[in-house]
Amino acid sequence: MGRYLQNTWYQAGWSGDLPPQGNLARTICEVPLVFFRTAEGTATALLDRCPHRFVPLSAGKVGPDRITCGYHGLAFGADGRCVHNPHGPILGALAVRAFPVIERHLAIWVWLGEADLADASLVPDLSYIDETPPLARITGYMPTAANYQLLADNILDLSHADFLHPDTLGGINTTAKSTHRQDGERVIVDWLAEDCVPPPAFRATLHGAERADIWTEVVWQAPAVMTLGVAAMVAGTPRRAEDEGYTLHNMVPETATTTHYFYCATRRFRIDDEGFTAFLKVALAQAFTQEDKPMLEKQQQRIGEAEFWDLQPVLLRIDGASTRARRLLEARIAAETPAG
Amino acid sequence: MGRYLQNTWYQAGWSGDLPPQGNLARTICEVPLVFFRTAEGTATALLDRCPHRFVPLSAGKVGPDRITCGYHGLAFGADGRCVHNPHGPILGALAVRAFPVIERHLAIWVWLGEADLADASLVPDLSYIDETPPLARITGYMPTAANYQLLADNILDLSHADFLHPDTLGGINTTAKSTHRQDGERVIVDWLAEDCVPPPAFRATLHGAERADIWTEVVWQAPAVMTLGVAAMVAGTPRRAEDEGYTLHNMVPETATTTHYFYCATRRFRIDDEGFTAFLKVALAQAFTQEDKPMLEKQQQRIGEAEFWDLQPVLLRIDGASTRARRLLEARIAAETPAG
Amino acid sequence: MGRYLQNTWYQAGWSGDLPPQGNLARTICEVPLVFFRTAEGTATALLDRCPHRFVPLSAGKVGPDRITCGYHGLAFGADGRCVHNPHGPILGALAVRAFPVIERHLAIWVWLGEADLADASLVPDLSYIDETPPLARITGYMPTAANYQLLADNILDLSHADFLHPDTLGGINTTAKSTHRQDGERVIVDWLAEDCVPPPAFRATLHGAERADIWTEVVWQAPAVMTLGVAAMVAGTPRRAEDEGYTLHNMVPETATTTHYFYCATRRFRIDDEGFTAFLKVALAQAFTQEDKPMLEKQQQRIGEAEFWDLQPVLLRIDGASTRARRLLEARIAAETPAG
Repeated sequence: MGRYLQNTWYQAGWSGDLPPQGNLARTICEVPLVFFRTAEGTATALLDRCPHRFVPLSAGKVGPDRITCGYHGLAFGADGRCVHNPHGPILGALAVRAFPVIERHLAIWVWLGEADLADASLVPDLSYIDETPPLARITGYMPTAANYQLLADNILDLSHADFLHPDTLGGINTTAKSTHRQDGERVIVDWLAEDCVPPPAFRATLHGAERADIWTEVVWQAPAVMTLGVAAMVAGTPRRAEDEGYTLHNMVPETATTTHYFYCATRRFRIDDEGFTAFLKVALAQAFTQEDKPMLEKQQQRIGEAEFWDLQPVLLRIDGASTRARRLLEARIAAETPAG
Repeated sequence: MGRYLQNTWYQAGWSGDLPPQGNLARTICEVPLVFFRTAEGTATALLDRCPHRFVPLSAGKVGPDRITCGYHGLAFGADGRCVHNPHGPILGALAVRAFPVIERHLAIWVWLGEADLADASLVPDLSYIDETPPLARITGYMPTAANYQLLADNILDLSHADFLHPDTLGGINTTAKSTHRQDGERVIVDWLAEDCVPPPAFRATLHGAERADIWTEVVWQAPAVMTLGVAAMVAGTPRRAEDEGYTLHNMVPETATTTHYFYCATRRFRIDDEGFTAFLKVALAQAFTQEDKPMLEKQQQRIGEAEFWDLQPVLLRIDGASTRARRLLEARIAAETPAG
Repeated sequence: MGRYLQNTWYQAGWSGDLPPQGNLARTICEVPLVFFRTAEGTATALLDRCPHRFVPLSAGKVGPDRITCGYHGLAFGADGRCVHNPHGPILGALAVRAFPVIERHLAIWVWLGEADLADASLVPDLSYIDETPPLARITGYMPTAANYQLLADNILDLSHADFLHPDTLGGINTTAKSTHRQDGERVIVDWLAEDCVPPPAFRATLHGAERADIWTEVVWQAPAVMTLGVAAMVAGTPRRAEDEGYTLHNMVPETATTTHYFYCATRRFRIDDEGFTAFLKVALAQAFTQEDKPMLEKQQQRIGEAEFWDLQPVLLRIDGASTRARRLLEARIAAETPAG
């Protein structure tokens, strides 16, 4: 659990987490990073450790076009090179590693691996976020003391909702038709619960109907970026695009046992309903913090420092998608690791 | 300190700690266990880790005759075998280790070693607990951040009361006649303080007498089960059974540096005096939590991860019983450890 | 960072920290020590671990001329030998290591190394403390979760004040004339800020003058004892002894990552001004706890368990004195370490 995919875009936060004059300190894959904006607003990432005395640059001040160390005043630009040394010449060694950053889909993305490979087209396509009016989307962040792959497993097997969220989301997926497949580098799993009693969380588009068809789909890509689509239809009626909602669940490793969990819920229905948005925001946070998070953190405690596979988990039908995703990620990590 | 006796009964709790529909999570000798009751009320112990995704089963629900994992709904019976899999067939691998359990003397006992050797007759004989009317007995539990053998040493050398509990229990045992001996697998140590000024805690049977003979005895058996008998007599009068009190002090290792301390105070005098019972309950807890526990935890901090004997403790006369008990326990552990 | 100079005097506290009947537990260089006073008031240091059962002696009671273990009543004198065993003869093994102690300059000093080498003349000469009237001196203690050498670096490079304390002390030293030199075993660094705008903290002797000459000097000796001298003069006027202030900054290692920071501010001006003393006391503590301490602790967190030099710090002009001090200390430590 101590090795991470390097050549990939990791979400470091939401755009709003990084104000024009502030900075954002965030450790990703055990690398301490500081993010700040240039005068033009471009997000930038540096190693969050001054090369002089090793204090975090995030304890300093931002601007213009630089971050200034709070201890001795060395200033570094977006490329990591020193732009000001109050104590003498700017030595070549006065530099910190800079990391490629892209801001897209309301999020800040950083690339930890080889900079030459940092292709902007590899940022996950989350255009559904951009296409959703602000009133109909909810972004959130929930730090969790568990490995990011455990959090991905949780989304890739939604049968858990029947047991962990029985009063809100659960009751349909264990008995639903479910398939999973690999599509290139993506893993796709879906559920179709036909003619079911809709759980409370799915009633928003049903106009009081007592029976529903509920479609759910999760699309995963490495390292642990998932989009969960859902639509609830009156039983026997076709799925309509305007009833669909899509939620990003992005699990970013902070360390081997802690995760930055970013989510963004979007919907195509009741898009002007501020009250509904406010309700959903609370409901999402509550379900996670009161039900998923405690379970995932207990799971991590039981696993401890062991490797997941070394514990020989008994695999069930419901683990097909998460197992395939884990294997794909392992292959990606192995491919970038020098042999021997 | 990281090896424990396996083939023995460890107390996991008091019967009342395990309600009919609840469960009790308790780690013993570093093994996480979950206890629950069958429909008939029989106490049961399983490894507290689901074989599917490793969450603690204690985060799930109990009944009937099973514990159901709170994450994906797998249910396990008293023998540890899966009795319900909502997601497919019941594979043979869907099982957790079950541990022999006996409920006796108000307590729940579990056997971590070879199940074939789990002989009910090896449960320590604490029939004095059963023979005591409920109003005259007090059970308690005090988790302590120190190795269980340090807690056993504390009971096996009651001279410490003169220094650690000078205002309540102390003042007699350092100068009392004391002997210790081995009787089979048991270590017995006693003190007789003749014609002494009775400490406050011993005045309950003395009817105001100013001089007393006080008899105290501790009977130890492995791993760290002790019964402390005490009787205070008017000086020069014979000890009478009806003046005796017997208290269980059972030190159960949770980890190398933490202990489940279970105690049960019983008495043969003032057996209907509820007020006295209530007073004793508070006094016992106070003496331990305010005097013993801080000292024992500081002791553990000073010892750290060192082996007790490696620190070369200077042995005094008062350490005879605890040294003998430690040696007996070490021999028992060595005997069940394969050579080499 | 796990090796410490042994043959040196470490400050264990201020004299007032050790009352006549109390004791002071303080770990220095990872050695747990307990300090107490004899009946005559002489400060004494023993290993804070009873040789019988390893509880800290500091959990016991002091007096007369002894510390008595709170667990079993063994008493030890100032030389570490047992003077009372309530349980039998005083065995030769009943002793704890005693450490040479001197009380001087309001402080208690302890010697961890070879007792034969504990020369009282090696106590740092801080006679300015004794020469200062009580109203004009302030002693303090600020425990900090960072290596003591990082705290020494902080004092040896006062340019940091311009960035870390810009509103009180800073604004002059980055641009001041500065030199450093070695004088025997001492490192001396000074700054002279000529015709500058005096920072608020330096206005006490300036009688409202808008331009000042400010002289600052730090004298370091191993392991990390520093005296910081300062004087602010009306610009163009000579430095006068009666305008000088001298402050001890003594960084004593508790562990590799925690430090006992002792300071004593003395001044030769406004020596009867109690209000000024009260103001300074708060200002000193605030600057440290709100500005230095958070930065130093973050620095330690970023360094983690790495060796400082292994991280290859970029050295600037301002690091001359601290680098020389580190090298001198390393040489001293190496000189007392057996080869191979």
